[in-house]
Amino acid sequence: MREVAIVGAKTTEFGELWERSLRDIVVEAGIGAIEDAGISGKEIDAMYVGNMSGGRFVEQEHLGALIADYSGLARGLHVPSTRVEAACASGGLALRQAIQAVASGYSNVAIAAGAEKMTDISSSGATDALSAAADREWEGIQGATFPGIYAMIAKLHMKKYGTTGEQLAAVAVKNHENGMHNPIAQFKSKITIDQVLKSIMVSDPLHILDCSPVSDGAAAVVVVPAEDALKYTDKPIYVKASAQASDTIALHDRRDITTLDATVVAGKRAYEMAGLTVKDIDFVEVHDCFTIAEICAIEDLGFAEKGKGGVVSLNGETKLGGRIPVNPSGGLKSCGHPVGATGVKQAVEAVTQLRGDAGKRQVDGAKYGMTHNVGGSGATAVVHIFSNER
Amino acid sequence: MREVAIVGAKTTEFGELWERSLRDIVVEAGIGAIEDAGISGKEIDAMYVGNMSGGRFVEQEHLGALIADYSGLARGLHVPSTRVEAACASGGLALRQAIQAVASGYSNVAIAAGAEKMTDISSSGATDALSAAADREWEGIQGATFPGIYAMIAKLHMKKYGTTGEQLAAVAVKNHENGMHNPIAQFKSKITIDQVLKSIMVSDPLHILDCSPVSDGAAAVVVVPAEDALKYTDKPIYVKASAQASDTIALHDRRDITTLDATVVAGKRAYEMAGLTVKDIDFVEVHDCFTIAEICAIEDLGFAEKGKGGVVSLNGETKLGGRIPVNPSGGLKSCGHPVGATGVKQAVEAVTQLRGDAGKRQVDGAKYGMTHNVGGSGATAVVHIFSNER
Repeated sequence: MREVAIVGAKTTEFGELWERSLRDIVVEAGIGAIEDAGISGKEIDAMYVGNMSGGRFVEQEHLGALIADYSGLARGLHVPSTRVEAACASGGLALRQAIQAVASGYSNVAIAAGAEKMTDISSSGATDALSAAADREWEGIQGATFPGIYAMIAKLHMKKYGTTGEQLAAVAVKNHENGMHNPIAQFKSKITIDQVLKSIMVSDPLHILDCSPVSDGAAAVVVVPAEDALKYTDKPIYVKASAQASDTIALHDRRDITTLDATVVAGKRAYEMAGLTVKDIDFVEVHDCFTIAEICAIEDLGFAEKGKGGVVSLNGETKLGGRIPVNPSGGLKSCGHPVGATGVKQAVEAVTQLRGDAGKRQVDGAKYGMTHNVGGSGATAVVHIFSNER
Repeated sequence: MREVAIVGAKTTEFGELWERSLRDIVVEAGIGAIEDAGISGKEIDAMYVGNMSGGRFVEQEHLGALIADYSGLARGLHVPSTRVEAACASGGLALRQAIQAVASGYSNVAIAAGAEKMTDISSSGATDALSAAADREWEGIQGATFPGIYAMIAKLHMKKYGTTGEQLAAVAVKNHENGMHNPIAQFKSKITIDQVLKSIMVSDPLHILDCSPVSDGAAAVVVVPAEDALKYTDKPIYVKASAQASDTIALHDRRDITTLDATVVAGKRAYEMAGLTVKDIDFVEVHDCFTIAEICAIEDLGFAEKGKGGVVSLNGETKLGGRIPVNPSGGLKSCGHPVGATGVKQAVEAVTQLRGDAGKRQVDGAKYGMTHNVGGSGATAVVHIFSNER
């Protein structure tokens, strides 16, 4: 298996990008990543596009070819381009496929992009489109939406472990603090625990400020064999692990709904592949689609004891400068969550941090960074570990 | 790059499977392929699911995890599972990703499945869902449907090369003849050129019997490293080439709409990868979503001179026993075209032929078989070459 490195990375701004279409934003991110890598489009020999639901959000499937076309890589160059989908983990899996394409030797310069345009339909339409990430026959059809599903996880976490609303709110407050220093973030505003607790209730115990927003955005990275990386950049970021796991799609079939087994298993596979332990990781971008999701994630990845994720969030251990900075980018909560883009945007943040280019949100001296991207309520999890040392 | 082989293959029957859901048919095909390979589900370490539009046909995205779950591979085993989409080429690309996963060393036993459930919505709904494979902003929004798009290709082919309605019809007649011997085919009826020409006009010059139908169905294959293949079966089928190419998604941007450049380029890449020429190929399964598509395909892959695809179809060169048997399975026309399943079903046919198990539709002594799967009107093409010799 060939080792793999990232040599270019870019995101668009995240937010309500009403003047730009899906194809516009993917091309913007892709060209940004190509320019960042200092390569020509002619060198690209494979493309992967992570997108959850172009079909339902903008009535467009076949996004791989569409994006190759609008990037100028179809006519003449005929670059193979493939869409990958696993709900909100689509971006992470697009990256994983690009890594495998390069690792296999099928590709020498692959681009992994993630994108979603969610604000072109009504918010109830978006909620319905998103609910297709759950089990339609057992969850969606009963009216279960994702805030409702994660609220059930939160309720049980509170009951089993004494997790509090303040602890949940602390996650949102910390992510907004980080996001204030991220130019691409949808929300760059400081919030307080009191504001979170007084914001409108979406699904008890989750207030609106516990929820990531509906967003537009795109991100892209350029992946090459590690042995070639220094030809492109003097700061290549090496992929130390790319791991994925599945779990039951419906919540009611899990052995314990407060633990995302797909995260636990993908995390274990990633640590093993990298030959590292949780203590080696300097920062982690986790999938905080809701505040409870970050709490579960840091427990399931080993950054907090099971049941203590809320405690360590409230006491500051996950802040910048804390024991383990979690979501230095601002996470899904502050940056926004264009679902297919998120997994790639997490990788862009890891690259930015490991290059030492993260400015006021920099994790000082970071050597190993992890990203964690979840599909649905945890039926898919994908974990990557990156390093600035080969 | 590790060489790769197929050791298990299965399709469901294709047709209007109203009593079975999408998840039912994928699991049926997957279990069939696993049983055919004589392996246990526990050995599987990666899964790819080709599906065009679960979101629009059955309101279900996140199909990778869903299928892992309903196959018993999620809980406990947590097998990574990824959906791949490129419109009607989704199945071919799912196979290609499984091949890359094994070639890279990320996987040792991968399953590639393809599936679509198209008959649970109205036929106008299905036509609209399918039109999302074209460029929504330049084609779909103008009312262009796929019969209309392929009719334009047919009209120009007739004008430039003198192709006739009889020649188009001969493709359908031959594919129905072959499909009569295929137990999974949706239509096992013999038809005549006269019947095709007298059947109702869908989009001039394409009659309804020039068109593949709306179908339900699923197919799956098990992919392993070539060096391990004889552990599983005494008739492994080796993957000699897996090649993909993109083109402009909208027809009006092509240099010549009667040539699918993505097919030409994917074909060239495949011949080069396999170290073979068109003369080495013993049979080919091409993407005959419409009769004109088969005529373009055999020209673009080199089995007929440009402009002569209609002539060789009418004079019998593409029949079983002819110079180059095309679509011995019955093709999309007779077998049906559950869009995400088709690319994998073509591989199942290649495996069946190369094992010598195709019964009355057997291509005698076949050593090399090719499959050709197209997305949309040719923005994506994927070509595989298989052999029963390593």
